[in-house]
Amino acid sequence: MQFDSLDDIRAFCRDLPPGHTRFAEAAAFRQQNLTKPPGSLGRLEELAIWLARWQGREVPRLARVTIAVFASNHGVAERGVSAYPQAVTAQMVANFAAGGAAINQIAKLAGAELRVVPIELDRPTRDFTTAAAMDADEYLAAVDIGYRTVPDDCDLLAVGEMGIANTTTAAMLCAALLGGGGARWAGRGTGVDDGGLLRKRAAIDAAQDFHRGILGDPLDVAATLGGRELAAIAGAVLAARRHHIPVLLDGFVATAAVLPLARLDAGALDHCRAGHVSAESAHRELLRELALEPLLDLDMRLGEASGAGVAILLARAALACHAGMATFAEAGVSGAGD
Amino acid sequence: MQFDSLDDIRAFCRDLPPGHTRFAEAAAFRQQNLTKPPGSLGRLEELAIWLARWQGREVPRLARVTIAVFASNHGVAERGVSAYPQAVTAQMVANFAAGGAAINQIAKLAGAELRVVPIELDRPTRDFTTAAAMDADEYLAAVDIGYRTVPDDCDLLAVGEMGIANTTTAAMLCAALLGGGGARWAGRGTGVDDGGLLRKRAAIDAAQDFHRGILGDPLDVAATLGGRELAAIAGAVLAARRHHIPVLLDGFVATAAVLPLARLDAGALDHCRAGHVSAESAHRELLRELALEPLLDLDMRLGEASGAGVAILLARAALACHAGMATFAEAGVSGAGD
Repeated sequence: MQFDSLDDIRAFCRDLPPGHTRFAEAAAFRQQNLTKPPGSLGRLEELAIWLARWQGREVPRLARVTIAVFASNHGVAERGVSAYPQAVTAQMVANFAAGGAAINQIAKLAGAELRVVPIELDRPTRDFTTAAAMDADEYLAAVDIGYRTVPDDCDLLAVGEMGIANTTTAAMLCAALLGGGGARWAGRGTGVDDGGLLRKRAAIDAAQDFHRGILGDPLDVAATLGGRELAAIAGAVLAARRHHIPVLLDGFVATAAVLPLARLDAGALDHCRAGHVSAESAHRELLRELALEPLLDLDMRLGEASGAGVAILLARAALACHAGMATFAEAGVSGAGD
Repeated sequence: MQFDSLDDIRAFCRDLPPGHTRFAEAAAFRQQNLTKPPGSLGRLEELAIWLARWQGREVPRLARVTIAVFASNHGVAERGVSAYPQAVTAQMVANFAAGGAAINQIAKLAGAELRVVPIELDRPTRDFTTAAAMDADEYLAAVDIGYRTVPDDCDLLAVGEMGIANTTTAAMLCAALLGGGGARWAGRGTGVDDGGLLRKRAAIDAAQDFHRGILGDPLDVAATLGGRELAAIAGAVLAARRHHIPVLLDGFVATAAVLPLARLDAGALDHCRAGHVSAESAHRELLRELALEPLLDLDMRLGEASGAGVAILLARAALACHAGMATFAEAGVSGAGD
């Protein structure tokens, strides 16, 4: 195991591997000399410099891009918080394996390998309204699965999830770590009706009451109120930090999954970008809390890394310009004010 | 010539080829059955249905995608409204030909052919503060060049431009057709300083005064206050409508170029989507006036179809999901409430 205890994770987050400032500066200098007004490629320039910073290369590469999708089940599903039955988690994992889901098509288009990792689908977490969803060992096992899913040599990682009822779990983590209760964080997820929405809010508020004692500590919250696929996403994001791999986060659930890390250290997500902001209303709020500016805003709310997967295309566009454009000198183009 | 007179264009816009409602409906039905909560791919679903509507295919294709970039020079450049000398227009056309510009890299990534069409670079339009920029024949010749640039059989067209001083021309068209003067529509373009910005505003206000008599008619405005590359973009967008080709518009200049068509008929841009909203402040305002919702918001302000080019990647993602995903029945996945 990479982390034998919650304290190991805390120690890692106290001493995070830093980005490569020198390569970020070199990439920024390169951008200044390309045949365009300075800054005119906007976030594509920022993306190229960010890839350079975390990969440690003036000209980053995107030879191996990995999309990791973690799946698990949630005890809180019993509370009637989703429009879909819990069996859909396993059915969708089978659909991923057969190549029929959205993320299969997006991964192929984006030139990314897809790793789908189901985690104990037949053993849902306990319903957190009346018990701890996971104990520390169960949580660490899921973190470890996520950590080991990331290839050391990948150039960019996109993380996402599948798990019926997991927008309730994500909202739970936000409520516990950022305050505001179910009313602030529960949304319609895959499309629950008004009754389902009220049940989501009620479950979150009940759990906040029941677990009042642990609400101060980010990792206790992540275990007690979280889910296995969320823990795995956190593990994958830690592995990426260790191996200097930039990360694209998917939607609300994937972002909530790494919120505990950000609460341990404000810089823990410096190697991450928000691939998109989803239509799940709480996602925009969470991104604001984390000072993450989404790359895309396409009203998507599917999960399974679909938004982060589309954002890989933007990283490829950023790199194509960064690596392939001529400089003013090479092209014989006059600069501003010449 | 496709249009022998301004009246020919007016007649075309009174009797616009409609979209294929039947195919849009079939595509929407198909989306409902794919393995995802209904609507959860957001704008990717909308894009697939839009492509179906204009191509007349339940499953659209993106075999031939064309990016057209038109370039010309502007008499108003003499007023000191740009940070760059006018020679840069031709230098950038050479850079496009040599493959060194941003749009070359983006076109390659997006699997699109790039057509760069310089229009009489050594004959700038007249300075519209003291004369008509073009007469009707000059305008129609530029429209015709744009019209003939579009291959009949292309599946998606992205349009953009290059022309030193052309954000002043674009702002001029907006001021003349939407009101508000230079203060509302002039921005920093490629990066003019405060003095340049004041000169842009002054040029627009002076021209509005000088040409007060023609301000009522969209095509008189497009000729008298426009530019050749803007006229060509309008011509290309008309050709696309004729041949049932959906169009991605680039930034402020490309959008201003088709504003006269929208003023002739509110439905003239139904086959168009805004590829992005640029950092040029007036672009967001113009898109709002046209009820166009941009696909991307990446703080880009380069022109040369770069934003529309990146948006082609979104169209490809939309089509990949639309064409490649399994249905609920095929995948054995339970639907909502099952």
